[in-house]
Amino acid sequence: MASMQALYQDFSAPDSTGDIAARVNALRTSLAEAGLAGFIVPREDEYQGEYVPAGNERLQWLTGFNGSAGLAILLHDHAALFVDGRYTLQAAQQTDTSLISVIHSADQKPSAWLADHIEADTEIGIDPRLHSATMYRQFERLCIKAGARLRPLATNPIDELWHDRPALPDFPVQDHPIDVAGETASHKIESICALLDDAGQNALLITQPENIAWLLNIRGTDVPHTPFVLSTAILHSDQTVDWHIAPERISDTLRTRLSASVRLIPPTDLAKGLAAQAGKAVWLDPITTPMWFIQNLKGAQIYEAADPIALPKARKNATEISGAEQAHLWDGVALCRFLHWLQTSPEPKTEISVACQLEAFRRDQPRLRDLSFDTISGSGPNGAIVHYRVNQATDRPLEDGTLYLVDSGGQYDCGTTDVTRTVLMGTTPHPDMVGHFTRVLRGHIALAKVTFPIGTTGAQLDALARAPLWEAGLDFDHGTGHGVGSYLSVHEGPHRISKESDVPLQPGMIVSNEPGYYRAGAYGIRIENLQYVVDASPKGDRPMLGFQTLTRAPIDRRLIDATLLAPDERDWLNQYHDEVYHMVSPYLDEPVAHWLKAQCAPIT
Amino acid sequence: MASMQALYQDFSAPDSTGDIAARVNALRTSLAEAGLAGFIVPREDEYQGEYVPAGNERLQWLTGFNGSAGLAILLHDHAALFVDGRYTLQAAQQTDTSLISVIHSADQKPSAWLADHIEADTEIGIDPRLHSATMYRQFERLCIKAGARLRPLATNPIDELWHDRPALPDFPVQDHPIDVAGETASHKIESICALLDDAGQNALLITQPENIAWLLNIRGTDVPHTPFVLSTAILHSDQTVDWHIAPERISDTLRTRLSASVRLIPPTDLAKGLAAQAGKAVWLDPITTPMWFIQNLKGAQIYEAADPIALPKARKNATEISGAEQAHLWDGVALCRFLHWLQTSPEPKTEISVACQLEAFRRDQPRLRDLSFDTISGSGPNGAIVHYRVNQATDRPLEDGTLYLVDSGGQYDCGTTDVTRTVLMGTTPHPDMVGHFTRVLRGHIALAKVTFPIGTTGAQLDALARAPLWEAGLDFDHGTGHGVGSYLSVHEGPHRISKESDVPLQPGMIVSNEPGYYRAGAYGIRIENLQYVVDASPKGDRPMLGFQTLTRAPIDRRLIDATLLAPDERDWLNQYHDEVYHMVSPYLDEPVAHWLKAQCAPIT
Repeated sequence: MASMQALYQDFSAPDSTGDIAARVNALRTSLAEAGLAGFIVPREDEYQGEYVPAGNERLQWLTGFNGSAGLAILLHDHAALFVDGRYTLQAAQQTDTSLISVIHSADQKPSAWLADHIEADTEIGIDPRLHSATMYRQFERLCIKAGARLRPLATNPIDELWHDRPALPDFPVQDHPIDVAGETASHKIESICALLDDAGQNALLITQPENIAWLLNIRGTDVPHTPFVLSTAILHSDQTVDWHIAPERISDTLRTRLSASVRLIPPTDLAKGLAAQAGKAVWLDPITTPMWFIQNLKGAQIYEAADPIALPKARKNATEISGAEQAHLWDGVALCRFLHWLQTSPEPKTEISVACQLEAFRRDQPRLRDLSFDTISGSGPNGAIVHYRVNQATDRPLEDGTLYLVDSGGQYDCGTTDVTRTVLMGTTPHPDMVGHFTRVLRGHIALAKVTFPIGTTGAQLDALARAPLWEAGLDFDHGTGHGVGSYLSVHEGPHRISKESDVPLQPGMIVSNEPGYYRAGAYGIRIENLQYVVDASPKGDRPMLGFQTLTRAPIDRRLIDATLLAPDERDWLNQYHDEVYHMVSPYLDEPVAHWLKAQCAPIT
Repeated sequence: MASMQALYQDFSAPDSTGDIAARVNALRTSLAEAGLAGFIVPREDEYQGEYVPAGNERLQWLTGFNGSAGLAILLHDHAALFVDGRYTLQAAQQTDTSLISVIHSADQKPSAWLADHIEADTEIGIDPRLHSATMYRQFERLCIKAGARLRPLATNPIDELWHDRPALPDFPVQDHPIDVAGETASHKIESICALLDDAGQNALLITQPENIAWLLNIRGTDVPHTPFVLSTAILHSDQTVDWHIAPERISDTLRTRLSASVRLIPPTDLAKGLAAQAGKAVWLDPITTPMWFIQNLKGAQIYEAADPIALPKARKNATEISGAEQAHLWDGVALCRFLHWLQTSPEPKTEISVACQLEAFRRDQPRLRDLSFDTISGSGPNGAIVHYRVNQATDRPLEDGTLYLVDSGGQYDCGTTDVTRTVLMGTTPHPDMVGHFTRVLRGHIALAKVTFPIGTTGAQLDALARAPLWEAGLDFDHGTGHGVGSYLSVHEGPHRISKESDVPLQPGMIVSNEPGYYRAGAYGIRIENLQYVVDASPKGDRPMLGFQTLTRAPIDRRLIDATLLAPDERDWLNQYHDEVYHMVSPYLDEPVAHWLKAQCAPIT
C-alpha cells in the first residue's frame, strides 16, 4: 500500500525568523506610546488549553516560535522567550536570538527574570484574558515587590498590530448524543448544581472548553485534535445556563435538545453577563480561570476553589467506558494492520511516510473524527527525544537494526485513544535494546496488574512502574500516566500517575500507563496502553481497586527477554496478547490475522 | 533458663480511677478563682517528646490515663480526653468516664470539640510551655473565632495542686565520646552555624533534647528508653552555646571537653536568657518549639523555619554507621539466643515471661544502656493489636499453633536497635498464616532490595512494601518505616517510609522496614529490620541509592511458602540468612549455633 497524504497532521519544517524584528519594534513603539515598560506574552489564550486557534497564536506572531508551551516577556532593552526542555532547540531556531534570549524555564523562571530586569516606578502591561488568576497574581506580587505596577490592558496591543490575524473559529457546534455521553446534560447540570448548593454558591463560572463540552454534551472543531467549542458558560444554581457563544453556531435540533434552560448569548455580551452576577456568590477555579473574569465579576462574592466538574468528568460512566472499549477496538484494528505493514512491507520508510500510513489506517476505521495529537514518530536517536515531533527537516529513514517509537492516538466520536509501541526494524536487536525493553515492559505490567486500596493516589503507584529500571540505574524523565477524556482532551485531569499526584484514583477514571527508557543519541523505548480503574474486590479484607486495559495492540516479542520475566508477569503478557488476538483478528484480512496470531502466541 | 525480672520494663496493670473526681474538682475550683472557663492539659511537657519524667505526667495526674499520647480539655460543665485508636479502651478503663468523656481523636479533634463547647466572652487557660507554637496558634484561632480568649498562664495550676509531684530528674549528664559520635561537638557547631549564616540568623533556639544530645555529644537518663538530657540551648552564630542546665549535672571532665564555648547557665535563668536575645535574629521551628519561648523572646526577630539539625542528625556518619552495625550484631546475638530458647525450651511461657527473658538476653550483651521502648509481646490475638503493650491483666500464654509477635529494641551506647519477628509456636501453622506471612515477607524484601534515584522520598517507596498484600485485598494501617537515631530516639525524623513522607532519602539515614498484616482476634504478623541508605551506583545512567540491612536475626522459615517467592526474592532471603549465620554464629554456644544454621539454610 502506498503511503498517503496526512489530513490531520502537518509536517512542514519550522518557519524562518522572517519579520520578527519588525514586529518586536512595532510592539515596543506601541508600548512606549502607552507608557508601558514591557508586555507579557503567553502562548495560552483565554481558554488556557494546549491547542489554540491560529488567530490566537500571539506568541508565534511575535517570536516565530510555534511550540505548544512558552511565554515571552518584552521590555524595551531586553526580551526573553521561556520554554521547557523539549523546545529549547526549536525556539532558538525559530526566533531571532539577536533580539530575544531563549531561556530554559527550569534554569530561570519568567518571574525571576522579570524581577531581575524590572525597574521601579514603571508599568508592565498584561492581557488579563490570557493569564489564569494564579499566574496573574504571581506577576502582580513580583511587580509590587519591585516597586513597579502590573497594568491590565483592555485590548491586546498585538491584536492591533496583527493586520492579517486569522478569524477566530465559528464552525457549527456538534451534538454529543446520549448513546455516547451516557448521561443527559440536564442530569449533569442537576448534579453539579447539587455541589453548588452544598457549597452555598449561586453560580459556577465555566471557562474551560472541556467542561462546557462535558456539561452540555457538545463537541466542536475549533482547535486541532481536541473537539473543543471555544466559549464560556455560567451555570446557575437554578439549573439554567448562560452560554456565551454565537447563536448561529447552534443548529435548531441542538437548540431543541438543549431546551430553554440553556440561554444562548453572544460572546460580545460576556462582560455584561459577568457584571450581572453582582451580589451573587460565584464559584470559579483560580488555576484555570483568567484574571479578566475576576476583574469583570464586579460586586459578585467570588468563591475560589477547585473545579467541581473535573472529578465527575474524570469518572467515566458505563456508556463512556463501553465507547472507549469500542474506540480502542477500532484503533486496535488500525494499529495491527499498521504494525503488520511496518514489519512486512518492503518499501523504504521514513518517520513521515510511516506516520502518514498510520493515519491512513486509522481513517479507514469508522467514526474517526481526528487524531488525538500530532503523531510522535521517532526512528533511532529521534525516538530518544521524548516529545519529538517530526518535520521535513528532521525526517529520518527507518533502518534495520534500529528501534522505531510511535506514540499516536485517534479521536473517535465515542472515545479518545493514545498508544505507544516500540518496534524493532529488521530482525536482530542489540542485546541492550532487549534488556531495556524488558525492564520497561516489567514496569508497565506492574502498573497494569496492581491492586490498591480505595484512596490510593497516582503518586503512590508511580514507583511500581519505575522499580525495574531503577534496579539497573535507569529512569525516565516524564510522568508515568495521565488522565484521558471521553472524545475530549487526550490530557485530562485531575488524576495522573506521577510522583506529585495527590488525587485518589476512582472507578471509571481512564489513565495512561507509559513507562519508557531513552538512550540519548541511540534509541527510545516506551510502552503505552490506556487503562481504567475498576473495582477489584474479589477477596481479602478490604474493598480494592485495580485497572482494566483498553488498548489492543501486540507488544514486540522480539524485544522481550522472557527469562527476565517473573511467572505472573509472563501470565499477564500472555493473557493480554490472547485478548488482543481474539478481539482484533475477526476484523483483519487473513494474512494480517495470521501475522497477529504469531505476534500474540504465548511466551514460555 | 528460668525467666527473669525485668529491669527496664514495668508490666503492672493500669491504675484504678482513684481520686480523679477530687482532682478534677480541685482544678475546677482553681480555674474558677482565676476567672477561667477551662484549661487544656496535653500529655507533652516542654520537650514535646514521647517520654516524659514522672513529675511531668500531668495528664495522668488529672485523668488517670497513662498512655504515651493524649490531651484533655477541662471546662466547668464538660471534660474530654482525646486519645488515638491504640488508647480508646485503656483510657476508658483508667479515667472516670462519669466525669470525663473519652473521645477518639479521629472522630473529633480537640479543637472541634472545644469549638462546640466554648462560650463567647470567656477565657480558656493554657500553659504555653506545653504546646508547640503551631498547636497553640490553632487553639488561639479557634478561641478568637468563638469570640473567646486563650489566656497563657505563668504557672500551671496542676503543679500547684499536685502536692506529691515527683522531682524532675537531675542525673549526671553522660559524655557521648568521639569514638561513637564520629564528629566533634565543635565541628557540628561549626556546620550548623554555617547554616545560620546562610539564613542570616544570629542564633538557633534548640528545645528538642535529641538535638542538644546530637550537637553537644552528650546523653542522659532523664526519661525511660531514650537517653535524653532535658534542657534547652541557644546556639549563637559565633559558635558559642548557652546551655540552660543545672551546672552540677556536668562533670569536670565533660566540662573540659565542652570547652569555654559552651556556657552552663541554670534553667531558672532561661527567661532572662531569652530576653537577652532582643534585637537578634533567632531561628526556631514552630512545630517543635513551645509557644512560651516565642512569648519570652521579646524584641527578637524570630525566623520560623524547619529545624536545621534534623537532616545532619539523620545522615549518620561512618562512625555512627559502624556503631549501628556493632549494636545490631550484639542485638542479633541476643535475638538468636532468644529465638532458640523460644522454640526449644519446654517451660510454659507467657507474653510477660518471654519479654523478660528477651530483656535478660539483651542485658547479657556489652554496652546495653536500656531498652529502646517497652517490648511489644503479643501472643495470638494480642499480636493483632498494633501497639499492644502487655500488662499483668492482659498477659496471655503462648500456645501451640498460634503466632507470637515480638517488637523490641535495645539502646547500646553505639546504636539503637528496633526489630520485629513473628514466630510460630509449636510446629504446624494454619495455611492462612503462611500465605499472609509470605506476602508480608515479599513486601519487606521489595523495600530491602529496591534501588532508587537521588531525590526519592519514602512516599514513593511505600507501595512497594504493600503491593503483595494489596494483591490479595489486604493492607496494614501503620507506616512502613520510621527513622531511627544513633543511641537516641527510636523514632527520629525527618524521613520515613509512608504515603505522606516528602523528605528525600539520603545516604546514612537509618530507617525501619516493617510491613505487617493483622487479622483481628486471631494473629498479627510483622517483619521489621532496620536498614540504612547507601550509594548504589554500580552501573546504569544515573547515580542511585539503595539500602543496607542492619538487623541480624532469622526470619521464621516455617511460615514461608517458597513457591510464592520470585527467584530474586528467594536470593535476597538466602543471602540475608547466610549473613546472619556467618556474622552471629561465632558468638553463640554450639547448640544455638547449630540451631541457627538450620534456620539460615538456603530455601530452594
